[in-house]
Amino acid sequence: MTASTAPLFDRVAIIGIGLIGSSLARAVAEYGLARTVVCGDRSEAACIKAMELGIVDAAYTDPVTAVDGADLVVLATPVGTFAAVAEEIGLSLAPGAIVTDVGSVKQVVLRDVAPSLPDGVHLVPGHPVAGTEHSGPEAGFAALFQGRWCILTPPPGTQAEATEKVAELWRRCGSKVEIMEASHHDRVLAITSHLPHLIAYTIVGTAADLEEDTKSEVIKFSAGGFRDFTRIAASDPVMWRDVFLNNREAVLEILQRFTEDLTALQRAIRWGEGDLLQETFTKTRAIRRGIIDAKQA
Amino acid sequence: MTASTAPLFDRVAIIGIGLIGSSLARAVAEYGLARTVVCGDRSEAACIKAMELGIVDAAYTDPVTAVDGADLVVLATPVGTFAAVAEEIGLSLAPGAIVTDVGSVKQVVLRDVAPSLPDGVHLVPGHPVAGTEHSGPEAGFAALFQGRWCILTPPPGTQAEATEKVAELWRRCGSKVEIMEASHHDRVLAITSHLPHLIAYTIVGTAADLEEDTKSEVIKFSAGGFRDFTRIAASDPVMWRDVFLNNREAVLEILQRFTEDLTALQRAIRWGEGDLLQETFTKTRAIRRGIIDAKQA
Repeated sequence: MTASTAPLFDRVAIIGIGLIGSSLARAVAEYGLARTVVCGDRSEAACIKAMELGIVDAAYTDPVTAVDGADLVVLATPVGTFAAVAEEIGLSLAPGAIVTDVGSVKQVVLRDVAPSLPDGVHLVPGHPVAGTEHSGPEAGFAALFQGRWCILTPPPGTQAEATEKVAELWRRCGSKVEIMEASHHDRVLAITSHLPHLIAYTIVGTAADLEEDTKSEVIKFSAGGFRDFTRIAASDPVMWRDVFLNNREAVLEILQRFTEDLTALQRAIRWGEGDLLQETFTKTRAIRRGIIDAKQA
Repeated sequence: MTASTAPLFDRVAIIGIGLIGSSLARAVAEYGLARTVVCGDRSEAACIKAMELGIVDAAYTDPVTAVDGADLVVLATPVGTFAAVAEEIGLSLAPGAIVTDVGSVKQVVLRDVAPSLPDGVHLVPGHPVAGTEHSGPEAGFAALFQGRWCILTPPPGTQAEATEKVAELWRRCGSKVEIMEASHHDRVLAITSHLPHLIAYTIVGTAADLEEDTKSEVIKFSAGGFRDFTRIAASDPVMWRDVFLNNREAVLEILQRFTEDLTALQRAIRWGEGDLLQETFTKTRAIRRGIIDAKQA
């Protein structure tokens, strides 16, 4: 066995076996990244499903039991639960264990998780920028992280070896790893992920409030652009509630810019300013080309 | 040859050989819907490309020549050009010819095209609700209309046989056909298509205005939701400028509802009202299920 194929961890415990947690469990098993992978999930149904799917070696409804003896603990529940979970498992963590997470906001991890971790346990917050609109253990797949970015936001003073082990975990899942400050992460993701989801939820909500007969026509003729928004707006409601509650400042700031820009286009439509519309619709193409060139399309 | 496979038309002239026009040209040839299909396009490059691709029997930069002897003329240029094109070709149309279009707004067709058509020429406005973010004759494909809706908006008094022939054309392209009033079409499409495009253009525009280094990170981490918007916002700028200029009232009305709903969510984020967020994010799932059930996902 060469160094690059040896398991990185002895026992990985994934808390929350939803789309991301179950995808990571599959990847850990498929790519041989740990000798054992277990999960903890409050939902007994999720635990049973995870065992049926054969994606974990053991599943526990009690997170304390799940993390017992784990050298890597991955928090994969909605970020609003992190403080409670960390408090519950904190004292049961093995000395030298690494705690990471897959949350879409990162400053909150330092605020909510760090205080509950004993000395000698390493916190390396992470965010795999990948996902689908589906939820639950059956929605996951090992290839979800292939070619995608994973952002790590270790606070100053984090043990370099711990950060490197988490980075290597994601690289072996097929991801590219970037390290940045938590506050910077939260600003960038506010525009690339949080605002798009908020907008998609809003427009689908606006449609949901239409009279019944119009609503059925909206569904019928959704291929004109609307259906792409419905896909985004089908993402997990609790996960996204927690994202917005925990990245308030950055989301409100980018939302303000968005609203100004939308108001300018609204005015251009009202006053028939075709040049301004065409100019705006043209400059957006450069961004699309950048995404295609970066192979993120 | 059975009735259902006999050509519907003798000579089809498609004015504007972009994504939709070239897809229709391909479908007409592939499914044997006309003996001859020609195109007219102001762009000599587009005409040459269409001939190289072998998707038309002849291509003309002069629309008057293109429509000569055609029993079906399809306007597939941006809707802002319809008045000028109709005025130019009107007197050259063969008696009994049918004129249709593929524009995304329909009241404007009655306003801009009808006045230029001589007696005995039938106007059956149409809108295939299908498309991609790509433009130009090379972007088209015959299967684009398969399983999609095509909406026809014949004004009162339109010859039933003419409407039926256009409907049959689209059915043989694989589409389902719906007939409604032009004003109703414009209201429904304002939410299913026009507003989503306006929002997508806005959010990508907001990102395009960010500082260079943030912008490159936005591209890098676009998989979190943003890239879906960039795809929509890569659609043809001139086509969309014309849509907004020609469906002003309906777009402004639905935009007003959207803005109210967005403001309510913004307020919920600011004040930490998690229940309202979760409730909104949950109700949108029913619409997504409707789209999946209607096989429009």
